[in-house]
Amino acid sequence: MVVIAPGGDAAHPVEDARVVRTRNDVSRAALRVLTEQGWDAVTHAHLARTAGYSRATLYKHWPARTDLLRLAFARLDDMPHHEPTGDLRTDLVEEVTTFRTGMEQHRLDRALCALVDLATDDPEMVEVRDQLVTDGEQVVRRLLAPMLHGARLEAATLMLCGAVLHSALMHGQLPGDDVIAASVDLLLRGLDRP
Amino acid sequence: MVVIAPGGDAAHPVEDARVVRTRNDVSRAALRVLTEQGWDAVTHAHLARTAGYSRATLYKHWPARTDLLRLAFARLDDMPHHEPTGDLRTDLVEEVTTFRTGMEQHRLDRALCALVDLATDDPEMVEVRDQLVTDGEQVVRRLLAPMLHGARLEAATLMLCGAVLHSALMHGQLPGDDVIAASVDLLLRGLDRP
Repeated sequence: MVVIAPGGDAAHPVEDARVVRTRNDVSRAALRVLTEQGWDAVTHAHLARTAGYSRATLYKHWPARTDLLRLAFARLDDMPHHEPTGDLRTDLVEEVTTFRTGMEQHRLDRALCALVDLATDDPEMVEVRDQLVTDGEQVVRRLLAPMLHGARLEAATLMLCGAVLHSALMHGQLPGDDVIAASVDLLLRGLDRP
Repeated sequence: MVVIAPGGDAAHPVEDARVVRTRNDVSRAALRVLTEQGWDAVTHAHLARTAGYSRATLYKHWPARTDLLRLAFARLDDMPHHEPTGDLRTDLVEEVTTFRTGMEQHRLDRALCALVDLATDDPEMVEVRDQLVTDGEQVVRRLLAPMLHGARLEAATLMLCGAVLHSALMHGQLPGDDVIAASVDLLLRGLDRP
C-alpha cells in the first residue's frame, strides 16, 4: 500500500523518499563495509546490522549479493574531478592528484580489486566497472585529446591513471607529489617535441 | 619415520623429494584454482580433490588458508623476463610485452587482485606481494636506471607497468602492441630532450 502523506501526491508518493533514504543508508554502509572489511563482509545480514534495517528489507530491495555490491560501487560514480584551469601541466597534475585522493579517502584499492574479481564472472559487474572507469578517466582524456589520439591517447591515459593504480595496488602506497609531477613532466616533454 | 630408499641417504632422505613433489602438485593446483575460479575457491577440501591428495596431507603441510594462497603466489616468482639486447626501445617494448603475456597466460589480473586484498590485513602477504612486484619491475628499472633516478625513475616505472595493469584490471583487456609501443615512445621522447 502506498501511503500519501503531506508533501506527497499520487504521482510521487512519500514512499519514494523512504526508498531513497533506505538506498542511501544501505549503499553508504555497503561501501564502508566493502572498503574497510573486504567484500566477503558485504552480506545481507551484516549490512542490515550496520545500516540499521531488517534483513527482510534488504532482501526485498536487493535480493542478490551482487545487488548489494552494485549499490556500493554506485556511490563511487560521482567521484570528484579537478576543474580545468587551462594550464595543461597544472590541470594534469591536479587531476591525477584528485584521483590519488579518491584512492585514499575511499580505499579504492580494495573496492577496485573486488570489482575486477566480480567482473570476471558477471557481465552486469562489467557494466558497473566500465561506467566507473569511463567516468574516472574522462578528465585526463579530455585534457590530452587536443594533442593525442588513437593509440597514443590511449597509452598516455593508461600511463597517468596506471601510475597511481600500480603504486596503490602493487606497492601498497600512494605515489608522492614528486612522482605525480614527474609522471606528468615526462609525458609532456615527449609531447612538446616538434 | 623417515624411509631411506635407493637414491636417498640419512642427510637427504627420499622423504624430501616426496614433499617437493607434493608441494609442486599442490602449488600448481592452487594457482590454477585461484586464477580460474577465484580465491574463494582456494580451500583445503577443493585443492585436495583437485591435486589428488588427502585433506589431511594438505592440513599437515599448510594449516591455514593463507598458506595455500602463499603457495600459489610462490609459483609466480619465476615469471619470464625479456633478455636485454642493448637497444633501449626494443628492450622496453619487449619487456612490457612479456609482462602482458604473463598477465594473459597466468590470469594475473585475478591473482594480483586477490593478493592486494589479502595484503590489506596480513603482513605476511605484504612480503609475498613485495617480492613479486620487485621481481616483476626489476628489468624495467634496470633498463631505465642509466637515464633516470629518484622520483623520475619511480614515475617512469609506474607508468610503463601501470599502463598494462590499468588496462588489464580496469578495462578488462590487455593493451595492444600499438599501445605498448606508444607508451615506450612517449616516455623515450621525453628522455631524449637535452
